[in-house]
Amino acid sequence: MDFLSPRARAMAISAGATAGPEPERLRFDRGLVTEMVAKAPARFVLRAGDPLKNLPIGEGFTHWGCVSSAPQVNDLSGGRRPGSQEDFRRFVKLGHGLNVIGFFGGYPVEPQDLPPATRHLDCISDFLTLTDKVFHPYCLGATRIRDALDLIRLARGLTEDELREGPQCYTVVNSSSPLRYDAPMLDGLIEMALANQCVCFTPFTLAGAMAPITLAGALAQQNAETLAGIAFAQMVRPGAPVIYGAYTSNVDMRTGAPAMGTPEYFKAAVISGQLARFYGVPYRSSGGNAANAPDAQAVYETTFALWGAKLGQADIVMHSAGWLEGGLSASPEKLVIDAEILQGIDAAFAPVAVDDESLGLDAIREVGPGGHFFGAAHTMARYTSEFYSPLLSDWSNFGAWTAAGSRETLARAHDLMKALLDAYEPPALEPARAEAMAAHVARRKAEGGALDA
Amino acid sequence: MDFLSPRARAMAISAGATAGPEPERLRFDRGLVTEMVAKAPARFVLRAGDPLKNLPIGEGFTHWGCVSSAPQVNDLSGGRRPGSQEDFRRFVKLGHGLNVIGFFGGYPVEPQDLPPATRHLDCISDFLTLTDKVFHPYCLGATRIRDALDLIRLARGLTEDELREGPQCYTVVNSSSPLRYDAPMLDGLIEMALANQCVCFTPFTLAGAMAPITLAGALAQQNAETLAGIAFAQMVRPGAPVIYGAYTSNVDMRTGAPAMGTPEYFKAAVISGQLARFYGVPYRSSGGNAANAPDAQAVYETTFALWGAKLGQADIVMHSAGWLEGGLSASPEKLVIDAEILQGIDAAFAPVAVDDESLGLDAIREVGPGGHFFGAAHTMARYTSEFYSPLLSDWSNFGAWTAAGSRETLARAHDLMKALLDAYEPPALEPARAEAMAAHVARRKAEGGALDA
Repeated sequence: MDFLSPRARAMAISAGATAGPEPERLRFDRGLVTEMVAKAPARFVLRAGDPLKNLPIGEGFTHWGCVSSAPQVNDLSGGRRPGSQEDFRRFVKLGHGLNVIGFFGGYPVEPQDLPPATRHLDCISDFLTLTDKVFHPYCLGATRIRDALDLIRLARGLTEDELREGPQCYTVVNSSSPLRYDAPMLDGLIEMALANQCVCFTPFTLAGAMAPITLAGALAQQNAETLAGIAFAQMVRPGAPVIYGAYTSNVDMRTGAPAMGTPEYFKAAVISGQLARFYGVPYRSSGGNAANAPDAQAVYETTFALWGAKLGQADIVMHSAGWLEGGLSASPEKLVIDAEILQGIDAAFAPVAVDDESLGLDAIREVGPGGHFFGAAHTMARYTSEFYSPLLSDWSNFGAWTAAGSRETLARAHDLMKALLDAYEPPALEPARAEAMAAHVARRKAEGGALDA
Repeated sequence: MDFLSPRARAMAISAGATAGPEPERLRFDRGLVTEMVAKAPARFVLRAGDPLKNLPIGEGFTHWGCVSSAPQVNDLSGGRRPGSQEDFRRFVKLGHGLNVIGFFGGYPVEPQDLPPATRHLDCISDFLTLTDKVFHPYCLGATRIRDALDLIRLARGLTEDELREGPQCYTVVNSSSPLRYDAPMLDGLIEMALANQCVCFTPFTLAGAMAPITLAGALAQQNAETLAGIAFAQMVRPGAPVIYGAYTSNVDMRTGAPAMGTPEYFKAAVISGQLARFYGVPYRSSGGNAANAPDAQAVYETTFALWGAKLGQADIVMHSAGWLEGGLSASPEKLVIDAEILQGIDAAFAPVAVDDESLGLDAIREVGPGGHFFGAAHTMARYTSEFYSPLLSDWSNFGAWTAAGSRETLARAHDLMKALLDAYEPPALEPARAEAMAAHVARRKAEGGALDA
């Protein structure tokens, strides 16, 4: 593996990695990797602003995350355009309002109207102000991470020691596949691990492009890259919370374009979960699709990705909702459509009660051959809550649906999105904490922001 | 259970069922049901016109079927309208042309322009002429079944004895839930079982309407109804090929409208597969959705149903492709969209090669940190065939997609449907056989067709 940060290389070498012969190359002995990976915790809690929204990791739950890092936004009312702070805030409010969204990844859309060096100060402040769910600072150098951790301490009223008690956020470190970690990501992860914050290592191993064309080969490379990251985090701080991230997919071999939600993607998601469990670490997977519009392709590719993540038993699933175009745009209507799918998956995996009451043999006897159950006591006692109640699906008949304007799912999702924004209420934040955050942001902006990456 | 056919009641009573006290009521002792169900074969082959298209049943394969029994057709060019013979034929040609469609259920759309008493003669002739895939005559009285079996013998050049060697077709017997089998279905299934043809028993147990509102209760009732049917078929002819069919879903408790592809539907599909395996008989599941248009809801509800069928390890999945509106309309564009989903599911469950060649460690060494795999020998040797190649998905980037007319999936599916129809070629059929079929149809039409149900 090439580690492009001198600080990271020095730390790895002092912990047992071998240097060279190439200038930035490190070699990790199999025994060293095994020893280090074994130090990673199998379970921990990702803290949210509201403790009720903490995410237990490694406990068999699958948590769904909002789309992140899309440079463009694409919605029914405004079309496709570069993301802005207004769009960023709108997505944070939508993700806050949808109960099935458990956490945020990076910025749902990139606020391209904010200067890069200080963008993180505005966005982290917004995350801490507009939502009390788990969120994610970008791992782009040590300064941005330190700023994020400082803002989290101020927003949540924590001392440095309290911050270090367990992860108050997580970040994602992508390897620059094949076999390379860039300096800003390494420098940022060192700060995260030192502060006992969570790091998710995710190679972007597109089979046929940045990884071998075969699924076995791409997964072998993903595994090597992820394990190198996890091992390094344990060298920085034994016991640092980490997540095995996977994003193996394939490319369209005619054009080199990435494909997502393909059968290969599904298999990779399931197998990656098996690998993570083999190493005893939590697992991160993703939604995704390569469609240019929130159409049928967008939905079926997304469902392939989500079922792969769920059947792979992922702890966190990034980009679960709202993603289009291989991540190049974010759609608020698709966010709502995907929220319905995610709620459905959660309901599909909820346990089924089987006991004398639920078997209802008395009700079957009461109704008898040729009757119906609408008025049965067994039905009346349960009809308001027995079934999953959809967010978006319209089960009216064709006549009623036509009479109501023949509104297809996308139009209904647009309406629901507007209703969610109208109903948005920010979480409580003590004024003194808000002032402290604002002062930090003002001071750091005056200093120029992040100048190291 | 109420059995509304006197002939069927007499056969069941002589085989050990208890009559009454209600006039049409039968009671099946637990030991009798167990004894009879044990006679049903765990595996058999459903014969097609082309032996290469035979369906092995009970062997771990999931076969996907075309939408069936929709009274309306709904397509992009003609809108929603009653089905006609022309529509029926168009769907048979499309199902014939799509490799992933393994078989037909009943008529994909109901040809409402054909008289009910002779409709089956035209439609069975069409099935036998336009496709060589497995198909399904309706179980509406003994006469229609005998006509279908006669036409199959004539089309496939079989003697009566050869017909009885194993199933040349299958039919579906729906209980009239709760706890009742109607006379035409019972009379038809007797003919099917006597001729060693396959019968799939499928209660339509909508929880909260025709079955208890709880999943456990609806499944208990489904199980009783299906087992009564399977046991009865074994009373008619021990060893008759049967399939455990399941169609448990829920209703919208505000309106009574059936819902499909819900979380409850998914769970019922998985659990029903467990029940079928418990009894050692093959399993039938279904696709389905309650959307009024081939939109996002149609796709996500369909995928829930299809993943339930697949994870339930269904042998045959009816209505896998082309269904809308809870079965009230059939969409040829949706047929193409669903074919892509079905191909994807098949590819997702194909085994993954893991050996020295596929692991590609030499390729990873060759490319090294920071390189790419596009030109690697390992890639070049495999790039034309390594990945699933989509039927419909468009992976071009937003600029290329916009330049090509921003065609969404539904429009592309319409184009592909037209291309499939243009490319359609009927299977070979010896002229003498075609003439024999035509003569049978003419004679039976002159007799008035089916007058018994």
